[in-house]
Amino acid sequence: MSITLSELGLRQKPSDITRLMAIAIERPDVLSLAAGFTDNDSLPLAEVRDIVNDISNEGPSGKATLQYGSNIGRSELRSILTSRIEAQDTLESGTLDEERMFISNGSQQSLYLAIQTLCNPGDCILVEQPTYFVFLEILEGLGVTPIGMPMDETGAVDVEGLKALLTEMNESGAIDRLKALYLVSYFANPTGHSISESTKMEIGSVLSRLERPIAVIEDAAYRELYFDSPHSARSCLAIETFVGIPTLYTSTLTKPYSSGLKVGYAYCTDDSWKESMLTVKGQQDFGTANFAQAIVERALSSGSFDRHLNELRGIYKRKMETLHEALNSELSELGWSWSVPHGALYLWLRSPNALQTDGDSRFHAACIENGVFYVPGDLCYPSERVQDRIRLSFGTLAVKEIEEAATRFSLAAKSMTQAVSR
Amino acid sequence: MSITLSELGLRQKPSDITRLMAIAIERPDVLSLAAGFTDNDSLPLAEVRDIVNDISNEGPSGKATLQYGSNIGRSELRSILTSRIEAQDTLESGTLDEERMFISNGSQQSLYLAIQTLCNPGDCILVEQPTYFVFLEILEGLGVTPIGMPMDETGAVDVEGLKALLTEMNESGAIDRLKALYLVSYFANPTGHSISESTKMEIGSVLSRLERPIAVIEDAAYRELYFDSPHSARSCLAIETFVGIPTLYTSTLTKPYSSGLKVGYAYCTDDSWKESMLTVKGQQDFGTANFAQAIVERALSSGSFDRHLNELRGIYKRKMETLHEALNSELSELGWSWSVPHGALYLWLRSPNALQTDGDSRFHAACIENGVFYVPGDLCYPSERVQDRIRLSFGTLAVKEIEEAATRFSLAAKSMTQAVSR
Repeated sequence: MSITLSELGLRQKPSDITRLMAIAIERPDVLSLAAGFTDNDSLPLAEVRDIVNDISNEGPSGKATLQYGSNIGRSELRSILTSRIEAQDTLESGTLDEERMFISNGSQQSLYLAIQTLCNPGDCILVEQPTYFVFLEILEGLGVTPIGMPMDETGAVDVEGLKALLTEMNESGAIDRLKALYLVSYFANPTGHSISESTKMEIGSVLSRLERPIAVIEDAAYRELYFDSPHSARSCLAIETFVGIPTLYTSTLTKPYSSGLKVGYAYCTDDSWKESMLTVKGQQDFGTANFAQAIVERALSSGSFDRHLNELRGIYKRKMETLHEALNSELSELGWSWSVPHGALYLWLRSPNALQTDGDSRFHAACIENGVFYVPGDLCYPSERVQDRIRLSFGTLAVKEIEEAATRFSLAAKSMTQAVSR
Repeated sequence: MSITLSELGLRQKPSDITRLMAIAIERPDVLSLAAGFTDNDSLPLAEVRDIVNDISNEGPSGKATLQYGSNIGRSELRSILTSRIEAQDTLESGTLDEERMFISNGSQQSLYLAIQTLCNPGDCILVEQPTYFVFLEILEGLGVTPIGMPMDETGAVDVEGLKALLTEMNESGAIDRLKALYLVSYFANPTGHSISESTKMEIGSVLSRLERPIAVIEDAAYRELYFDSPHSARSCLAIETFVGIPTLYTSTLTKPYSSGLKVGYAYCTDDSWKESMLTVKGQQDFGTANFAQAIVERALSSGSFDRHLNELRGIYKRKMETLHEALNSELSELGWSWSVPHGALYLWLRSPNALQTDGDSRFHAACIENGVFYVPGDLCYPSERVQDRIRLSFGTLAVKEIEEAATRFSLAAKSMTQAVSR
C-alpha cells in the first residue's frame, strides 16, 4: 500500500544538490569545485575544544548548556549579534532591539520560515539574476514562483527596470501575489557581487511607494567573509528608505566559523511576522541546539571568533587567487571571463561563444570525465535559465587540489572551446 | 506599513508553552512542575568534554565534525541507531535498512516533516486522548485537525471503538481526509501509558483492512527512559500487521542524553514519503548539526551513552517516587488519583469532583499563587477538552525542590478540594 502525500509533499523533487552529491559519492576521484563547503584544515577544532573545556569548569551554567534552551535562542548570544550588526552598520548602540533577533539552524532555516509565513502556494518573490540556488529550491518546495529582476551589466539590480516591472505587475494584477524581494547583498553566492548602498537606497525608495507593502529579505551570509575589507554598504536595517518596510536580515555563524555547528541568526523589523516565524520554529524544533549556541556565544565574546575569522579571510583570499591565477593563465585567451571577487567562496565564470555548461551539457560530462565538478550556473536563475555560466567554489579543496582541479577544468574547457570554435 | 502573512503565517498563535514560559520568567520564585526539561545535575558535561577532547585528537576526521554533514545524517550514527532498534525489537540484524533512517533536530522536526508532507490544511489525523500536546500544536500550525480515538479505562486505544469510528468516517466520507494515526507508544507524555503489543497488533490489523492506506506515526521518544525494565511491546516496525502500512518511527537522543544537543532520529518504511521529508529537510537546514551528531555517535559507540542512561533511569525513578509519595500522603484521601508510571518524566493527575484545572481555572491561579506550576491537562486533548487533569513533570527539579513543589501543590489542592466539597 502506498500513501498519497500532501500537495507540498508531492511537490518535492530531489534537489539538484542531492543529485550532484550522489555523483560525488560514486566518483571519489573527482575533485569538487561544486560544494559550498568551507575550508577543512582551518576549522577551529582546538578552539572549540578549549571552549568546551571552559564550559565544563563553569559549574551549573556550564551544565545548563546541555539542557534545552529557549525557542528564540540564547539571550546573551542575541545581544552580542545585535550589537555586532549595529557596529557593522555604524548604528548607535541600542538602535536595534535584541528581542527582534532570533537564532536559527543556519541562516537556511530563517529563510524557510520567512517564506512559509509570507507566501501561499502561487505567490511570488522578486530575486536577483542569478541568485542563491538553494533559496530557489525553498521557493519551489513551497510552491512559490521566483521572478527575476532586471539586472545591469555590472551585476546590480537595474532599479529603473525594477520600477517598470512593478508597474507592469501592478497593471496586470500580478502584484497582488508579490510578497517579498530577496537580496543577497554581500559577496553574493554565486557571483561575488555586493550591492552598493545607493542601489539599496533606491530599491527601498521604490518599495516604499507601493500601495501594498512587500517585505524585504536581505541575506547577508557572506558579509563577514571579505578578503581585505568589508563592503562599504550598510544593511537595509540601517538605510532610511527601508524604514516602515518589513525587513528580515539573515546571516550565519556557520560559514565564518564552523559549518558543523549550524548556528544562524535573523533580525526582523516586523513583530507580527517575527512572532509567526517563531511559533512555526517552535513547532519545528523548540529552538536551535543550545550547546552549539553556547559554543559560538563564548567564541564571540572571548574574541576567538574574530581571530579565527581574520585568519580565514587570508586563507580564502589565497585560495581564490590560486584558482583565479591557474584559470587565468589557461582560459582568459580562449574567451572565458569572470570577475575577481572580494569575498566569499566562489568564482562565477562565463563561457565563450555561449558554450553550454548546464548539467546535461557535453561540457559538464567532459569535466566529470576529467575528474572535476562544478555547479552549473543555470541552477542559479529563476527562469529562462542562462546556460553559459559556472559556479566554482574554492572553499573546501586544499591549495594544491585547487591547482589540480583548475588543470582538469582547463583541459575540458580548452578541448570544448576549441570544439565550439571549429 | 504592515504585511499580510500567508494562510499558514496567519494561523499561528503563540503556543501555550510560550505563555506558560512567560509566566515562569516573571515569577522566578515559582517552582515548575510544568516544563518537560530534563535533570540538570546529571547532564553528561564531563562525558561530552571527554568526547570533544578525543575528537580533537582524531586528526582530519575530527576536524570534519565541524564541517557540513549530509542532509540525511551521519552514516555511522544511522547505522548504530538502526541496529539499536533491531536489538530493542529483537529483530535479526540487517532486517532494517539504515537508508530508511534519518537524523533530525530532535524528534520534533521529524514529526513536523511528517505532517507537512502528508497533510493538506483541512486533513485530519487520529490521536490518542490525551496525547502529546506539542504534536497538537504542530497540527494546529499546519491547519490539520486532530481526531481523538476512543480510549478504554486503562488508557489504551479502544480498538472496537476505533473500528466503529473508521466505519462512521467511511460512511460520511470524512475518511478521505484522514492521513495518519499517531501513537505515543512508550511511557507516553503525558500519561506514562505504554501500548501493549496486542493492542498495536489489532490497530495494525484494522488499518490494513482500509481501502485506502493511512500512515502510522509511532512516537517512541521515551522508550529508553524506563525506570526498571523496558516495556515489552515491540515497535510497529516489527509487528507483522503493520507490514505494508507506511510507518514512521521517531525517537530522540535528546531526552535520554542531552537536550542541548538536540539530535533525534526517524525510520520510515515508505521510500517516497521519506524522500519527500528529506527534500523538505534539505530546504529547512541541509541536515542536523554535524558536530552534535558526532558527539552522540561517539557516546553511543563507546558505551558512555548507555552508562549515562542507566544512571539517569535511577535518578528519574527516585524523582518520580519522591513526587508520588509526597502527593500520595497529602492528596489520595481527598480523591486525587493517578497511576504510578514505569518510565519518562510525568505524573498524570485527575482531580476529585471534576475540579477544574485548566489554565483559566481558580485552581491554576491558586497554584501559581502558592508558587508552583503545572501543565493544564486540557491542552493534551484534541477536542471536548477534559478539564480535570494535570500533568506534573519531575524531570528538572532537584529532589528537595520536588518535595517543596509537592507541598505547595498539595496546599492549593487541599484548599480547593475542600472548597469544592463544601
